[in-house]
Amino acid sequence: MTIANTAGTRFGDRLRDTFENTGQLCVGIDPHEYLLDAWGLELTAEGLREFGLRVVDAAAGLIGIVKPQVAFFELLGSAGYRALEDVLAAAREAGLLIIADAKRGDIGSSVEAYGRAWLTPGSPLEADALTLAAYMGTGSLASVFQWAEANGKGAFVLAATSNPEALAVQTARVTGNAATNQSVAGLVAAEVHEFNSGNTSAVRGSSSGILGNIGLVLGATKNLQEFGLDPRLLAALPSLPILAPGFGHQGALFTDVRTVFGELAASTVVSVSRSVLGAGPEKIQERIRRQAGELREALI
Amino acid sequence: MTIANTAGTRFGDRLRDTFENTGQLCVGIDPHEYLLDAWGLELTAEGLREFGLRVVDAAAGLIGIVKPQVAFFELLGSAGYRALEDVLAAAREAGLLIIADAKRGDIGSSVEAYGRAWLTPGSPLEADALTLAAYMGTGSLASVFQWAEANGKGAFVLAATSNPEALAVQTARVTGNAATNQSVAGLVAAEVHEFNSGNTSAVRGSSSGILGNIGLVLGATKNLQEFGLDPRLLAALPSLPILAPGFGHQGALFTDVRTVFGELAASTVVSVSRSVLGAGPEKIQERIRRQAGELREALI
Repeated sequence: MTIANTAGTRFGDRLRDTFENTGQLCVGIDPHEYLLDAWGLELTAEGLREFGLRVVDAAAGLIGIVKPQVAFFELLGSAGYRALEDVLAAAREAGLLIIADAKRGDIGSSVEAYGRAWLTPGSPLEADALTLAAYMGTGSLASVFQWAEANGKGAFVLAATSNPEALAVQTARVTGNAATNQSVAGLVAAEVHEFNSGNTSAVRGSSSGILGNIGLVLGATKNLQEFGLDPRLLAALPSLPILAPGFGHQGALFTDVRTVFGELAASTVVSVSRSVLGAGPEKIQERIRRQAGELREALI
Repeated sequence: MTIANTAGTRFGDRLRDTFENTGQLCVGIDPHEYLLDAWGLELTAEGLREFGLRVVDAAAGLIGIVKPQVAFFELLGSAGYRALEDVLAAAREAGLLIIADAKRGDIGSSVEAYGRAWLTPGSPLEADALTLAAYMGTGSLASVFQWAEANGKGAFVLAATSNPEALAVQTARVTGNAATNQSVAGLVAAEVHEFNSGNTSAVRGSSSGILGNIGLVLGATKNLQEFGLDPRLLAALPSLPILAPGFGHQGALFTDVRTVFGELAASTVVSVSRSVLGAGPEKIQERIRRQAGELREALI
């Protein structure tokens, strides 16, 4: 399947450029109530907006990627979304890549509507990429992949996450192919890779180093082999962008990126949230600068 | 675990009352672009609002449950959410039970924020129940279950859906317990039942006929045995409310409800969308009345 991208640069290319120019650190925009409090802000739309704008300001120029957690904005309904739209606009203006962490999933025209909401140039909720969940099958997300591909956007599909409750679902063995003994997480990874392969080559030929537009969310606090993701399988997917949350507060160390992701470390978005946001508005910029440096060291 | 419900009636009780008073039919509020067009409305926030209000008007007095598909409102960002808030307010005013079809899922304080967004009395997006997806494990949704329980609200967790792409994930076999050979869908069903059992008995004793506050989304177009859901297992879960979409347009017949769900048929919300909405604004009420009658006949 070949999908024409009519919207300028590919997401995978922008991500690669960002990695080269400003590194792989991503800061979450997660206005937890306790953080709002610590920042002297209220749990109101104005508080969410101010929190988001301050994080964008702190990140601009130091790093290249931000990841707003949509749930915290949805908490306040349309007023929260209005605040998020302002934060997204400021992030775009600052030249930051935006990964909207919404973990959406559905089928048919519903999932397509989610894709259009977040991945349409000029839409109020425009982001560069959207996180997706495939409980209804990777195939159910295909229309979003295609929309992303056609609009210069990207997506990250939950594969093996780092929360302990996820293990039973994500390690379950797909039936019907006993030979491969594939896990649910492994199936999602393989299907995303398959989509990318079909499209990436069509867009740019088989040059190495190119990143696909659709990637995976992988937790870095667990051994990925526990999820049935063989490191050799992952090493065979060098074009797959990875979004790895859970650094800092959730226990993963920057030095784990290489250990856990092997050859995929070079294409991994390393996301921190509370460990940076907890520094407070006065010290967040210093903390981002320090963590960006530490991550760069760890990835040399 | 016992959770005090400080918010008046339980969701399960309101659902049971609705079944008895106005039947089991639920109409989707799905403003597809082609339907807006057919209804003479634009794909604008005003068009979404008007569409939703007309469906609420048509449903009020004839049936007891509506299910807005959140994706179609999210498509327009904060303006779409503002329209949805008006539709939700009108539905509450009309005494309709609202199932917000958002298929949310996440972990920790993020998933909790989704629960609070949709299931807090007095919040702008207040609904009676929310659909959830458990790719990150049923346990990751526990804070929403608890929030629902404490606030007189409910939730429906995707278990076995009717879309063909879902089969591989939902039929995958959970490892670590070869004796049960449990599928992912079966695990989700069992875990939801376990949560309900703990709470329902605490709230009201072991009376029969009581419905839990947390239910399952099950598709009615597939044989549930394909998903590893043994009808005997389901028959052992009579307190589990079921949300069954896909009637009409997606191919399931009302007469399938008994065949597919067996003893659970009496606790199933039977949801129709396009087959009713396609009647257009002039004939939708007549169509709802007819379908409500046909469903009642099929369930006698």
